[in-house]
Amino acid sequence: MPTTQFDGVTVQTQANVYFEGKCISHSLTLADGTKKSVGVILPATLTFNTGAAEVMECVAGACDYLLAGSSAWRHCAAGESFAVPAHSSFQIRVSDQPYHYICHFE
Amino acid sequence: MPTTQFDGVTVQTQANVYFEGKCISHSLTLADGTKKSVGVILPATLTFNTGAAEVMECVAGACDYLLAGSSAWRHCAAGESFAVPAHSSFQIRVSDQPYHYICHFE
Repeated sequence: MPTTQFDGVTVQTQANVYFEGKCISHSLTLADGTKKSVGVILPATLTFNTGAAEVMECVAGACDYLLAGSSAWRHCAAGESFAVPAHSSFQIRVSDQPYHYICHFE
Repeated sequence: MPTTQFDGVTVQTQANVYFEGKCISHSLTLADGTKKSVGVILPATLTFNTGAAEVMECVAGACDYLLAGSSAWRHCAAGESFAVPAHSSFQIRVSDQPYHYICHFE
């Protein structure tokens, strides 16, 4: 089951808008200082670069992703996650329905 | 100054996606039970219906809005708000830059 809510968080009211709105997220800080974001990617194929390592948890919808250095696209559905190393990149492909995610920064 | 963050809230991780992604919001519940949402509207002209009365606070960007029964479009910029009665509707027009908002439910 995906994580459906976070309690006791600080949320930034201004969103992060990437790729002309194809990806929109809001930044969260948990009570213990952990940073996360919750967002949506609309149907598109996009490339993201990482600073810190991150885990992308799918909350609803689905995506295909391709990690840097890999030639194999993999599928990720609701309740599933994939990890991306620090200072790397990945492509994400969303078809049909919006992909809802939590980005967990490591 | 617009409200830049909320502390101690519960955030729903799955977003609300309206108008094929032209409007995306996340629902919040404050510690006192108050419900709000934080969202973005991309350039478009959209019509929304209200259930409860609400106040739309602009966090960044700007919009023009037209309340039901009015013939006058009005402008709302960052740090400004407008109120919409319950069981009513309004049009919102966003040009150029994304409009970031907090919807305060009354």
